[in-house]
Amino acid sequence: MSENKIPYKIYLNENEIPSQWYNLRADMKVKPAPLLNPGTGKPMTAEELSVVFCDELVAQELDNDNAYIDIPQEIQDFYKMYRPAPLVRAYFLEKALDTPAKIYYKFEGSNTSGSHKLNSAIAQAYYAKKQGLKGVTTETGAGQWGTALSMACAFFGLDCKVYMVKVSYEQKPFRREVMRTYGAEVTPSPSMTTEVGKKILAAHPGTTGSLGCAISEAVEVATSNPGYRYVLGSVLNQVLLHQSVIGLESKLALEKYGEKPDIIIGCAGGGSNLGGLIAPFMGEKLRGEADYRIIAVEPASCPSFTRGKFAYDFCDTGMICPLAKMYTLGSGFIPSANHAGGLRFHGMSSTLSQLYHDGMMEAVSVEQTSVFEAAEQFARVEGILPAPESSHAIRVAIDEALKCKETGEEKTILFGLTGTGYFDMTAYEKFNDGLMSDYIPTDEELAASISKLPVVNE
Amino acid sequence: MSENKIPYKIYLNENEIPSQWYNLRADMKVKPAPLLNPGTGKPMTAEELSVVFCDELVAQELDNDNAYIDIPQEIQDFYKMYRPAPLVRAYFLEKALDTPAKIYYKFEGSNTSGSHKLNSAIAQAYYAKKQGLKGVTTETGAGQWGTALSMACAFFGLDCKVYMVKVSYEQKPFRREVMRTYGAEVTPSPSMTTEVGKKILAAHPGTTGSLGCAISEAVEVATSNPGYRYVLGSVLNQVLLHQSVIGLESKLALEKYGEKPDIIIGCAGGGSNLGGLIAPFMGEKLRGEADYRIIAVEPASCPSFTRGKFAYDFCDTGMICPLAKMYTLGSGFIPSANHAGGLRFHGMSSTLSQLYHDGMMEAVSVEQTSVFEAAEQFARVEGILPAPESSHAIRVAIDEALKCKETGEEKTILFGLTGTGYFDMTAYEKFNDGLMSDYIPTDEELAASISKLPVVNE
Repeated sequence: MSENKIPYKIYLNENEIPSQWYNLRADMKVKPAPLLNPGTGKPMTAEELSVVFCDELVAQELDNDNAYIDIPQEIQDFYKMYRPAPLVRAYFLEKALDTPAKIYYKFEGSNTSGSHKLNSAIAQAYYAKKQGLKGVTTETGAGQWGTALSMACAFFGLDCKVYMVKVSYEQKPFRREVMRTYGAEVTPSPSMTTEVGKKILAAHPGTTGSLGCAISEAVEVATSNPGYRYVLGSVLNQVLLHQSVIGLESKLALEKYGEKPDIIIGCAGGGSNLGGLIAPFMGEKLRGEADYRIIAVEPASCPSFTRGKFAYDFCDTGMICPLAKMYTLGSGFIPSANHAGGLRFHGMSSTLSQLYHDGMMEAVSVEQTSVFEAAEQFARVEGILPAPESSHAIRVAIDEALKCKETGEEKTILFGLTGTGYFDMTAYEKFNDGLMSDYIPTDEELAASISKLPVVNE
Repeated sequence: MSENKIPYKIYLNENEIPSQWYNLRADMKVKPAPLLNPGTGKPMTAEELSVVFCDELVAQELDNDNAYIDIPQEIQDFYKMYRPAPLVRAYFLEKALDTPAKIYYKFEGSNTSGSHKLNSAIAQAYYAKKQGLKGVTTETGAGQWGTALSMACAFFGLDCKVYMVKVSYEQKPFRREVMRTYGAEVTPSPSMTTEVGKKILAAHPGTTGSLGCAISEAVEVATSNPGYRYVLGSVLNQVLLHQSVIGLESKLALEKYGEKPDIIIGCAGGGSNLGGLIAPFMGEKLRGEADYRIIAVEPASCPSFTRGKFAYDFCDTGMICPLAKMYTLGSGFIPSANHAGGLRFHGMSSTLSQLYHDGMMEAVSVEQTSVFEAAEQFARVEGILPAPESSHAIRVAIDEALKCKETGEEKTILFGLTGTGYFDMTAYEKFNDGLMSDYIPTDEELAASISKLPVVNE
């Protein structure tokens, strides 16, 4: 191993951190469908969106034309705190699998938020500060986005109110304390602090919550308090834009060593990591300059790509947000209580949904026990304890590498290691004790949830 | 900031990771006092030590002559998983403090053990494997060492038995699960699984444990099970040797930018981080080639340097280990239960003790509330949530930087950021809720504990 020319970790220099985000939509012939106003059924205008989001972020949300958008210097400076993120050659995993495949992973977990979420959090906090706002509200599931936003708000002196999915709030008390250490106010969702929370609790007493519920509450608080806006850690076009730094850095690092991935694998909840990781590669594919096999991996317990419907739906359970066209399980869908990690959103980024619909990428779903098996195997040889979310990508990367072992093909696999599992030890404890179970929703369950999609005349 | 020539993070290349450890003792005119056999009062021989420790580590323990010791290739390869560790210029902290001082920190926390401990764990596991052993035993306090050793043992397929100080075991259930995920067996100490544990529990029912107790138990298990040896994460010469990679990398990174620290600050429990960080700098100082102000920072609740006695003492509570000459509070000393972090060992590395005794370094003690204040301030501007242990160094680095602000001096400060606080959120929660308290042992308490030191004719 020591003789190998490619180092274990490829670090770019600080001046190689991207100074522009790449906007994948500019290269899409079929653009993602616009957000619709649920009242009028018409595309949301910038004016309507600016009630919920910061002005500059609204502009980014609606921008389907500009391929590159400058990253403000303040954000570039903040990126230097934890970027460039290393691209790691998984020599030890390759050896353990005895595979001819070359495996690379982009590790986004070596910052205190424990994930890639900081890439967009700092951008959204920056634009909120620039607009002179007092603070922002958001939801968080696994807690990584809430932590990232707390950090970004502490940095700019913004107030930060986080609605945390109740089951995560209870499974991850330490996540709450990290957010509080950065000065955020954290409320378990659904809560009695909002009208929509009260309504959801009345209809579903004892619910463990969902991202959809928490979004409804955070949006209500943002729109009913002057000086506040809502920010979201995934799904939206603007988030995928900010996350493009993952893919841009990965591509540059690989090119430095003359490497080109055959397969690119990312976990998919709302699509922020996957959309960011694949952005420049998908851009090449869209422009016909290169071809890549791109695989989205989602939990079998929340299978929006593989079993959802491509249709307009609410992004939130409370049905107060705009409608997005996406692969969805229905905004009322809540993953079963034994589902341990994040990736629990009922829908999927409109951009990724369009690309999937157009056959530009594949999707597979995996069960959580096999995901934790992959996580443990990875941790023991590569030394990083991965987040359950990231481990979905590990599972499929290992599966693909083992296929290479069978066929003898020397494929190059790139996957996104979005974060660390330090705050997921309750789930790991279950796995260690042999108490983890799987759950695949029945066709009837999904049909019931999907049957409630809003009727939209496109 | 962006115009500054010195990057935020200075990463060395993988081929700049040290290929030799630096053995500080070779440059000490007054060598650290040898370990004594408590039965005979004579220096421990290699043969006697090899009952407890691996043979190669015994050789390193006793080697006061060779300044440089080759790092085996397998260890160098493992180091590449998480090293080189970045040297960070704390631009944001400098700005927040409005100080003319330049602050650098060596960040050792971006690996799953969350600290520098992996540097020695992998070396000790490697030599155990090479000797054909079945497994190793150890103790852990804050849990970082236990995690590091679990990772190292998983890598080499060694059995790993960890005795974890009971108060930490209870405050940090997630630490236990990380160790279990890497395949270790974790027992709260004192326990009923050993003779010495039973004795300690009989004498002090309800004790929250101490490193000294846990060491006794781990040593008993190692010496009473064939194919096992005991390994220790701090205090010993061999550990300081392995940890010299911290200082070697720091020095090289600074030299690349023509920087030279005026003040070097490290937290001190048993001395592993401090000894490693200062090693090459202290070497220059000992050889008269350069001068540095070197400051050890310890908790006011466990003040071995600042209030202990420089004398021979047991390293463990059960008095079954060799005697070491060191600054000690007495092997029966147990920090008060409100003490939150690590740094709870009653003694101190013999090497560092000798250097302190010879006036080559300073020591200060700080109270934990002020330590957490520094931790929070640091986290909010530098983005890393620090371990409570590391935050002792942050406290004093901030204090020194603020003195520079008063005097206008543009000093260069280097401190060791040994790890992250992700598993210390119970302590952070206390701090966030305003419930953290301080405790300084009275003179009477310390005198009572110190009066029980063994009588040794040197």
